[in-house]
This record gives sequence, structure tokens and C-alpha cells, in this order.
Amino acid sequence: MNRDHNRFSEGRSLKLRLALLLTVFAVGLQNSSFAEDPLPSWNDGPAKTSIIDFVECAKSDGCEKYIAPEDRIAVFDNDGTLWSEQPAYFQLLFALDRVREMAADHPEWKNEAPFKAVLDGDLKAVVESGKEGLLKIIATTHAGMTTEEFAATVHQWIENAKHPTKKVPYTELIFQPMLEVLNYLRANGFKTYIVSGGGVEFMRVFAERVYGVPPEQVIGSSIVTEFRIREGIPVIERKAEIDFIDDKEGKPVAINKFIGRRPVAAFGNSDGDLQMLQWTAGRTGPSLCVLVHHTDATREWAYDKDSHIGRLDKALTVARDTKWSIVDMKQDWRIIYPE
Amino acid sequence: MNRDHNRFSEGRSLKLRLALLLTVFAVGLQNSSFAEDPLPSWNDGPAKTSIIDFVECAKSDGCEKYIAPEDRIAVFDNDGTLWSEQPAYFQLLFALDRVREMAADHPEWKNEAPFKAVLDGDLKAVVESGKEGLLKIIATTHAGMTTEEFAATVHQWIENAKHPTKKVPYTELIFQPMLEVLNYLRANGFKTYIVSGGGVEFMRVFAERVYGVPPEQVIGSSIVTEFRIREGIPVIERKAEIDFIDDKEGKPVAINKFIGRRPVAAFGNSDGDLQMLQWTAGRTGPSLCVLVHHTDATREWAYDKDSHIGRLDKALTVARDTKWSIVDMKQDWRIIYPE
Repeated sequence: MNRDHNRFSEGRSLKLRLALLLTVFAVGLQNSSFAEDPLPSWNDGPAKTSIIDFVECAKSDGCEKYIAPEDRIAVFDNDGTLWSEQPAYFQLLFALDRVREMAADHPEWKNEAPFKAVLDGDLKAVVESGKEGLLKIIATTHAGMTTEEFAATVHQWIENAKHPTKKVPYTELIFQPMLEVLNYLRANGFKTYIVSGGGVEFMRVFAERVYGVPPEQVIGSSIVTEFRIREGIPVIERKAEIDFIDDKEGKPVAINKFIGRRPVAAFGNSDGDLQMLQWTAGRTGPSLCVLVHHTDATREWAYDKDSHIGRLDKALTVARDTKWSIVDMKQDWRIIYPE
Repeated sequence: MNRDHNRFSEGRSLKLRLALLLTVFAVGLQNSSFAEDPLPSWNDGPAKTSIIDFVECAKSDGCEKYIAPEDRIAVFDNDGTLWSEQPAYFQLLFALDRVREMAADHPEWKNEAPFKAVLDGDLKAVVESGKEGLLKIIATTHAGMTTEEFAATVHQWIENAKHPTKKVPYTELIFQPMLEVLNYLRANGFKTYIVSGGGVEFMRVFAERVYGVPPEQVIGSSIVTEFRIREGIPVIERKAEIDFIDDKEGKPVAINKFIGRRPVAAFGNSDGDLQMLQWTAGRTGPSLCVLVHHTDATREWAYDKDSHIGRLDKALTVARDTKWSIVDMKQDWRIIYPE
């Protein structure tokens, strides 16, 4: 009877093992669908590995580089990091359209830099007027209206304008690999912020739709605004005066002021992002610092230390010295823009 | 057969009705436990009703005053709205402790307003030095250190200091009825922000623990900060210079800058909150504006237009004229502080 029983249980055991095997196989299949590549537009390589290793450990309690949910703050530069920035910052191209529209009321602009360059169609001279010159154009063309009127102007432009050489809407020149990083981080409990030299009220018009980043998580440069009751209606007016430039040392200052927590992950592409990356890297505990290097002259643009837009020189040296992740756009990105 | 069938179905129908009745009764019981009074520390009255009516409709798709989830932004003043502010703003009482500590290194303060008043223990004279005087003390006593050092100082103080007359920790002088409003709003999809004249880096130290408001949802006055690499360590230093005063017209300006969305609900208690309330009330669509009137000299303090701290004059007139909700603290609040 013992033998019979054993034989019987062996019979069951075989069936059980088969069932278990099938279950394991099924669960395996299921898991593999959950564990799909979170960054499918990235080629395998050290940059992709560094991001995945960081996130997988950050979310796993007990992992050496685990990060508590409330500390999962990730900051992203915008121009050159989340979308292209050539032949000039896209917000500048928006501003140029406005300068042309406003020029009739400003005859003095014909002889005044940098407006003269705009009206002459000399983009190179506009760019060479430097960040201060660019911000002068932005402050002038973006002011003298309410915040709501300005947002409507940007909305109208972003829906209709096309890039001068790529001939597609600007919102199609966002980086698919970075969208995947944003989604991957959010799916693992990270709060994603934009911290950009661009104008905060410019970016907020489209950041939620395009990047999934809500207005209150967009930080940028700003011009002075004033609250006023105008004919009984409360409005906020935009003044032709720069309030804050969110670049270089300004980025960690703004992060501290707006977020009040220190990021654990930072993504940038130029010397303007160096201090934000240093501030992130300098925290106690694990951090991820990623620098996007524009190396693809065919599919996007290739530039670094000699570029007036998105100059990358010192930050690249620091990144190499301190072993931050450097994205070689040509090598690391299977595709650049959403297909 | 028709009759039989009917009789049979009547028999079933009776059972069904009984079952339905019991189910309705059970669901009713269940609902009543869900529909517990969300504001138990509030006495019935127009203020409580206005808040509940607003929230219940705002969250109900199809209700006339429904508000889309992404628009559910609520802003709260802090001093006098979420906690007490007498005999002086609590941050000032923190600053006075620091002035006393720093006085040894500043012999000139013995003859310099408003420091002289602090060292003389003349709180009335300190308060009478006005908001600018108060902010001078704050800027001076809060600067010359890193942001992290400052946060540690505040943390140490808030954990140990006691209110001069109430003799309890400051965090016990928060308003229980307002905690309930914060929780009630959050439970219904509202994002709650503090928008205060107080220092942003002061409030952030305890706002999450005490009010459930995370650092990135605290907006306040600020002093100038600078990013620096100090002996290889990136730090943000606090300078003895005022950057921004988040009061009066500054409040809607800061809301626009930090949040980038217009609030649908605003809670304040003084003339410094008037513009924030106007900005909220002026939106297209439903809004809730609430003004807390300090009327309870026994349990808290009673003051309005003649107070140096939390002066309430013009905002009370506007609130009455425009039918905003006015909280009569003595009448409307069953309890003031958490028990």
C-alpha cells in the first residue's frame, strides 16, 4: 500500500510538476511583459545602463542605493535636453516672429542691436548678441500684456509654427529617448521637474501636453510681473524687465527656492546645467547625473564647446572627471524624435 | 398562469423588496459612515456650509460648479490662517531668540532699531517697526549660513521652543478647523498650497509634518541665496538681503510664478491676503474665498483693523461687499487648537 501510495503520489507529483512548470512559464511570460525595456529608443551602452541601474535600485527598498519616495525628485533642463535648440533656442524663434510683428511701432529698432539683426534676418548676429541680448529680445517681445494674453499668444504659435529647416512643428522636435526617461522615472515614483533657462510662462503652455510635466513643475527664467485691478478685473501684467535668469548658478538657487528639496537625478546638456548637476551630485546619498552630448550632425545637430547655443565645454570636462553619465546622441539613441 | 405567475412574482417581489430594503439600509449605514461630517470642529453656520457646498459640487461631475481635477488648486495664508500670530508672528519670535544669541558680536545693535527693541525685550516696539523692520530682523538673523544649516536651526527651535503666553510648543497653536479643511480638500482631489508672508525656508521645515503640505507646495518670502562651491562642497548660502516679500500684490504674483495655475479656493485672514483672494475670485468659473476673522479673545485673540500683526480692515470690507465667506472664529469654531 505504501508503494501504491507512493506510485500514486509520484503520478500526482509528475502532474503537479508539469502544472508548476507551466505556471512558472506563464508567470515568466507575464513578468517579461511587465519587465519590457523601459527605454526602447536607447541603444545598449553605459548611459542606458546607468539610468536603469539607478532607477531599479532607487525603487527597491533594501537595495544599497534605495531612495525614499519623498526624495525622488528629478530635474531636467529643456533646451537641448528635452528638445532641440538649433539653429537657435525655439523661444527665440518665437520671439523673432513677435519682433517682426511689433517693428512697425518701433522705427528705432532699425538701428538698434539686437533688433536690427532680427529685422535683417541675420540669425547669426542675433545669436552672437549673447544670452543677455537674447533675453533682451525676449523681455521686450514678451511684455506689455497680461499673463493670460501671453499664454494665448504662445499657444497660437506652438500650434501653428514650423521649424525653419526641419519643417515640422516644434513639438515634434522633442527627444523620444528623453520622453521615455520621464515616463520611466514617473512610473517609479519620481516627481519630474523642468529647470530651464527658458521662460517659465512660455514652457508652461505646452509642457504638460508635450512632456507630461504640469505647470507647477516647470521652473524657468522670468520677467517682472505686477498684480493690478484693471477696470474691476484683477490681472497680472508682464513688464519689460528681467526678474530672474534660471541658468548656471541660478539653477540650484531656483531648485532650492521652488522645490525646497534637493534632486536625486539631473539631466542637462550644456555648461548652463553644470551647477544643477553639481548640486544634485553633492547630496548625501545616491544620485544620477546625465549629460546629453549632441554628436549627431545627420539626424540632429553636432556641437559642443564652440556653439553659441548650448555651449558644452566645462561641464563635459567635469562629467568625464567625475564619471557622470554622458549620452553620445549618435551612439546611444536609436531614434531621436517620436516616430 | 398569468395570475399564478403574478402571485408568484408578487411573493418574490415581497422578498425582493425586503432584501432591497435591507440593502438600502445597509448601504445607508455604510454611506453615513463615509459621509461623516468632514469638518467636525466647525459649528453649523454659513461659513461651514459654504465650504462643504463648494467642495461637494466641485468634485461632482455634472454639478453646476464642478471643477476639473487639474484646476483644484487651493491656497492658504499661514500666519493667522493656519496657526496663531499673536503677540507677534512666530517666525519673529524665532528671530528674537537668534538676535539675543548674536548680540554679543554686534555691540552696535544696542543703539540700532529694531535690534535695540529686541534686546530691551520691548516686543511692542519691535512690532511697531513694521513689516519692513520685521523683515530686516529676519533677513539679518536668518542669513550668513547655508540653507541646510538654517533648516537645522529652525528644526531645533520648533522642536523645543514654547509660546511666551500659551506655554505650549508653537506647533500646538495650529487651527484644528483649518487642518480639517486641508484634509477635506485633499481627500477630494485638491492640491493644497501655503502662500505666506513668512519665510519659505522657515515654513518648509515643519509644514509637511504639521499641515501635510510638502516643501514644493510652500510659497513664501525669501532672502537672496547664492550657489557656491565651498572647499569642494556645493552649498547654497543665505545672504542678508531681501529677495521677495510674499505679501499683498506679491501673493498673486508668487502664485502665478510658482504654481502657474489660478487657484479656485483661497483662505486668508488679513489685508495682506486681499489680492490673493481677489485673484482667486476673479477667475472664470466657481471659486471659494474665505476670510478668517479673529474674534475670540478668550480662546485665541480678538483683533482686526487696529492690529500691527495681521491687520484686517480693507479685506473685511471687500469680503462683506462681495459675499466672501467670513469665519467668525468665536461663533464658527467649536474648538480652536487640536485637543
